[in-house]
Amino acid sequence: MSSVIELLKSHRSIRKFTDQAISPELFEDLIVAGQAAATSSFLQGSTIIRVTNPTTREKIAELAGGQPYVASAAEFMVFCADLKRAGNYCEQYGKPFEGDYTEHFIIATVDVALMAQNVVTAAESVGLGICYIGGIRNNPGSVSELLELPKGVFPVFGLCLGYPDQDPEVKPRLPVQVILKQEVYNESGDKQSIAAYDEQVREYYRLRTGGGHGISWTEQVSTLLSEKCRPHMKEFLEGQGFKFR
Amino acid sequence: MSSVIELLKSHRSIRKFTDQAISPELFEDLIVAGQAAATSSFLQGSTIIRVTNPTTREKIAELAGGQPYVASAAEFMVFCADLKRAGNYCEQYGKPFEGDYTEHFIIATVDVALMAQNVVTAAESVGLGICYIGGIRNNPGSVSELLELPKGVFPVFGLCLGYPDQDPEVKPRLPVQVILKQEVYNESGDKQSIAAYDEQVREYYRLRTGGGHGISWTEQVSTLLSEKCRPHMKEFLEGQGFKFR
Repeated sequence: MSSVIELLKSHRSIRKFTDQAISPELFEDLIVAGQAAATSSFLQGSTIIRVTNPTTREKIAELAGGQPYVASAAEFMVFCADLKRAGNYCEQYGKPFEGDYTEHFIIATVDVALMAQNVVTAAESVGLGICYIGGIRNNPGSVSELLELPKGVFPVFGLCLGYPDQDPEVKPRLPVQVILKQEVYNESGDKQSIAAYDEQVREYYRLRTGGGHGISWTEQVSTLLSEKCRPHMKEFLEGQGFKFR
Repeated sequence: MSSVIELLKSHRSIRKFTDQAISPELFEDLIVAGQAAATSSFLQGSTIIRVTNPTTREKIAELAGGQPYVASAAEFMVFCADLKRAGNYCEQYGKPFEGDYTEHFIIATVDVALMAQNVVTAAESVGLGICYIGGIRNNPGSVSELLELPKGVFPVFGLCLGYPDQDPEVKPRLPVQVILKQEVYNESGDKQSIAAYDEQVREYYRLRTGGGHGISWTEQVSTLLSEKCRPHMKEFLEGQGFKFR
């Protein structure tokens, strides 16, 4: 097994960082490594906003549901899906702009995620810790105002980077046979595997909280899917020019 | 700079593979490395369908717009956004299923992309080559039928893996200052940087095709955004249970 595979398997989110800064050269190198990820149809539909202003950081930490590490991490960035940069050239070449299909939304969102995950791997390879901040989608309109995002651009998630000041355990994942299917989608056997996994997850939480009952994976995710989840997203995205047609 | 950063920067898509198989142990290891990627709200909303059946492979190669390496690569997988696996437990716990918001779609799609990019990095770290196959979204309904995808599951992209039988150049990316913004979204200076980059891209294509005029980045992407792009996606996704509400 390669040391890179070991590195990938050792990922855990870091939510407490030391004061150590990330050198400008290293920071740029992480971004360039991010850019090297595949991009659908060569769109390069990602823009990263690096936020250093402490007031903006504090505001975003609050807007994201009260996540103080957004303010305190050495670096915080917002990864945006960007159809504007390429779209600008439709007008320049006298073509109509039709870049607001559901498919364009998928292309740009996937582009952003691939780039971000490369930044994450690059960062972890030099001893940095990371935490994705999906919570910025709690208040995407306010975040977009702060970052002056124009139409055609939407903030997908934030990312904290810094040198870790904690050493949490790796969180157990679903058994591989549950997520990897042969030839067709087939759930036979999943129920049993997931029941065993549920116990593993309970134990993980019991150890972290020092007692208590723990919560299983199925309890957590069934709650997530039984509640309205950021129901403002559709309207927000349409307002930003993503039409879902 | 770490060797991992060098590895990430050296990515290029591979579309011609040797006959060499990938060992089952290594293959599983790549998937486990994929699973270790961050997952929003611990959803783990990804399912991978590994396709080995030659007939299915040929069909998907065709459905994806005629991409023969889908059939010939050592491994081909389809990465799916999966809200069904977790959604099953809403019923079990007597909760309503509300997992069809736009936000759930984003969560699962990002989950899939982060996992896939980890698989890619793991694969490239052991000398394998990869090619993402967004073309499966040309015919998502037919692909879903072949893979027996139920409602709540959608095929985001395919991925070819194998030992490279070609050594293409790394494709140049946008200048870093164009995609990395400080504090706010700001396009000043982009036009000039992109004009220089356009020339670099033309030269890249000139060298690859052995002459001709080359095509610039802005020409390519403005075409992509001036045309209806897979206009069937919205209806297909709604049919699969993704309601965009």
